[in-house]
Amino acid sequence: MKKFLFLAFIPLFALAQNLQPYDSIAVGIFKRALSDNKAYEMLYELTTTVGHRLSGSPQAAQAVEWSKRTMERLGFDRVWLEPVTVPHWVRGSVEHGTILARGSRKAIPIRITALGGSIGTPGEGITAEAIEVKSFEELQALGDTAKGKIVFFNRPMDRTQFDTFTAYGGAVNQRGRGAIEAARAGGVAALVRSMTTRHDDFPHTGGMGYDETVAKVPGAAISTNDAEVLSNLLKKEKSVRVTIKLSAQTMPDAESFNVVGEIRGTEKPDEVILVGGHLDSWDKGQGAHDDGAGCVQSIEVIRLLKTLGLKPKRTIRAVMFMNEENGLRGGRAYAEKERPGERHIAAIESDAGGFNPRGFGVGDSTAYAKLVKWASLFAPIGADRIELGGGGADIGPLHRTRGVPPSG
Amino acid sequence: MKKFLFLAFIPLFALAQNLQPYDSIAVGIFKRALSDNKAYEMLYELTTTVGHRLSGSPQAAQAVEWSKRTMERLGFDRVWLEPVTVPHWVRGSVEHGTILARGSRKAIPIRITALGGSIGTPGEGITAEAIEVKSFEELQALGDTAKGKIVFFNRPMDRTQFDTFTAYGGAVNQRGRGAIEAARAGGVAALVRSMTTRHDDFPHTGGMGYDETVAKVPGAAISTNDAEVLSNLLKKEKSVRVTIKLSAQTMPDAESFNVVGEIRGTEKPDEVILVGGHLDSWDKGQGAHDDGAGCVQSIEVIRLLKTLGLKPKRTIRAVMFMNEENGLRGGRAYAEKERPGERHIAAIESDAGGFNPRGFGVGDSTAYAKLVKWASLFAPIGADRIELGGGGADIGPLHRTRGVPPSG
Repeated sequence: MKKFLFLAFIPLFALAQNLQPYDSIAVGIFKRALSDNKAYEMLYELTTTVGHRLSGSPQAAQAVEWSKRTMERLGFDRVWLEPVTVPHWVRGSVEHGTILARGSRKAIPIRITALGGSIGTPGEGITAEAIEVKSFEELQALGDTAKGKIVFFNRPMDRTQFDTFTAYGGAVNQRGRGAIEAARAGGVAALVRSMTTRHDDFPHTGGMGYDETVAKVPGAAISTNDAEVLSNLLKKEKSVRVTIKLSAQTMPDAESFNVVGEIRGTEKPDEVILVGGHLDSWDKGQGAHDDGAGCVQSIEVIRLLKTLGLKPKRTIRAVMFMNEENGLRGGRAYAEKERPGERHIAAIESDAGGFNPRGFGVGDSTAYAKLVKWASLFAPIGADRIELGGGGADIGPLHRTRGVPPSG
Repeated sequence: MKKFLFLAFIPLFALAQNLQPYDSIAVGIFKRALSDNKAYEMLYELTTTVGHRLSGSPQAAQAVEWSKRTMERLGFDRVWLEPVTVPHWVRGSVEHGTILARGSRKAIPIRITALGGSIGTPGEGITAEAIEVKSFEELQALGDTAKGKIVFFNRPMDRTQFDTFTAYGGAVNQRGRGAIEAARAGGVAALVRSMTTRHDDFPHTGGMGYDETVAKVPGAAISTNDAEVLSNLLKKEKSVRVTIKLSAQTMPDAESFNVVGEIRGTEKPDEVILVGGHLDSWDKGQGAHDDGAGCVQSIEVIRLLKTLGLKPKRTIRAVMFMNEENGLRGGRAYAEKERPGERHIAAIESDAGGFNPRGFGVGDSTAYAKLVKWASLFAPIGADRIELGGGGADIGPLHRTRGVPPSG
């Protein structure tokens, strides 16, 4: 699911089957985007002046202001905020992990990080034997064996997958539901191998959930290198004890916003084509690829139209969704809001990183049939792969509740 | 000219028109390459334990040893060195530049670097008025005006080109022949805007040449940001003086090597398919993209065949060429060497960086017609764009002197 919307607005001009007049418009857009380099400049500004921006954080509020100010400064026809109530989870400063193996005199430090949404541990941490599993089925088959233990989910992402999203999809249930399944088996915590194909020392955070039917136990990611260390020790020794200390906690919900800007259509202003990304990010990096890129690309779509004096027939709307990472509240709020007299005819999301675009995935077969005819417009930049399937998390609710064809 | 040979050996198995049996072999190769991750590991080792490796430098000698040892350790059928006499240019430690403008009390430092092959300046540097031109034609039209001046070549790479090699090709003559043309116009040095589409503070080095018909004057690159500073000053003031100090010098030619390893063909061992990259690099970075990537990809081709137990009908030969950057002596020496009883039937070079591959350029129409039929084999990893045109600098001599179809 390579999802890029960088240039996705071109088909708006190409509703007629004769693409010829649009070839030169498309090339003009490509050249202007490349020469102005504004998307990269905006991304640099967002990620260095604001930085990471987890929902509910001061930085998320700054990012809302930054987005609004940026679109206003660029002269968008309308810019506004739409309120969203978001979860407010904070990591805190304590994230420590150690292995206590019999064969080793000293505790071995392991690099761990709380998964987003996790509860913290008591101040002294949780110390328990670790038990390794590769799947929920394996855990369930253990019966009572996992009781009182730290459940170590160690199924790697499949490195042989060319599409890393496929590899991610094949492993990420351990992170999303690991704490639930660990608790259900009587475990005291979930320790999940980092979601990455790399062998590295960085524990990668990401979202996890709880379930009302079982107790909440902490969930943490362990770096892939340390996961190998722990796994090897478990092969050699009967009992390997692990300590994890996390100071994460969930605060009361916070007020935040989706940030919206648009250029009004000349002929059918009430028909809206949405281009979007998500403004929130995890708190361990800068949120450049995930998903600052999608936000600035959305702004860039309208900036380019304005700069080149191109007047779309329909309204093009850039939406910076809040809270994709740990709640999807922004995507839901956007879809639920009543918008009398307005009709969304398509929604495009970019949330696969700011790479060299190769094309689009279209999650609706009718829209796909149309878009595939426009592929040649994207050939000059090698972004002409149009595939059936895909979309984006933030525009999912719009698709499900209002039938808007998603693309990404 | 996207040139990637990462997986280029697959067509060797596909000489029959029926590709079906090769589909699964190809996929097996892709998966193994991805899961082993050895190409990246080798690249990391080369670029961190050896680092940059300019022809004639101690690091270049270490890189030769590293390549030989690596291929031997991987169990290649044969590994050997082929001597090449290379130019030995050294940068030295002094690279200073300043602008002395009338409107400014203090000298403004500019970031410059000697172009590869440049002579140095006297110890006190060269101080002269700068004169800006965008082309050789503009310089020639100036008549005597450039006499005694530092000629500042400031034609940017065209950022609107999607293919950055095209943008590079449109600007690089300023670097390659700037010092010659400056001298011909009576100038005392050439100062060339860095070859990059970025606006940054890093002066980028690269090759330049001299001509026996005119005096040798120093050639230096100036960072794109400082090129803008200088250009703006020149617009405002009549006389802007620039000082450049460079300690570069050319030593006597040095002995070096092309490093060669191969897997022997089972049916036609005397028919050779060459895959190559260049081992030397410039001395300002690590030479990862240019062209450590091409070298490790070449090694990886044979490592994968060995690992998977695949036995090619023809001999596959990996060549790490020496001295692509400032002389092409390795490519020439390889082509000139007589190899009785041996026939090269194709040569593939990777020298466009270690990116996600998109396909191949083929510089021979007959070979192109064949290769294009095998495109579907590369579709699983999205590398199925086969284009007519392209090749590589190192395999150019083999193509010109022996008619070997080039690809990259």
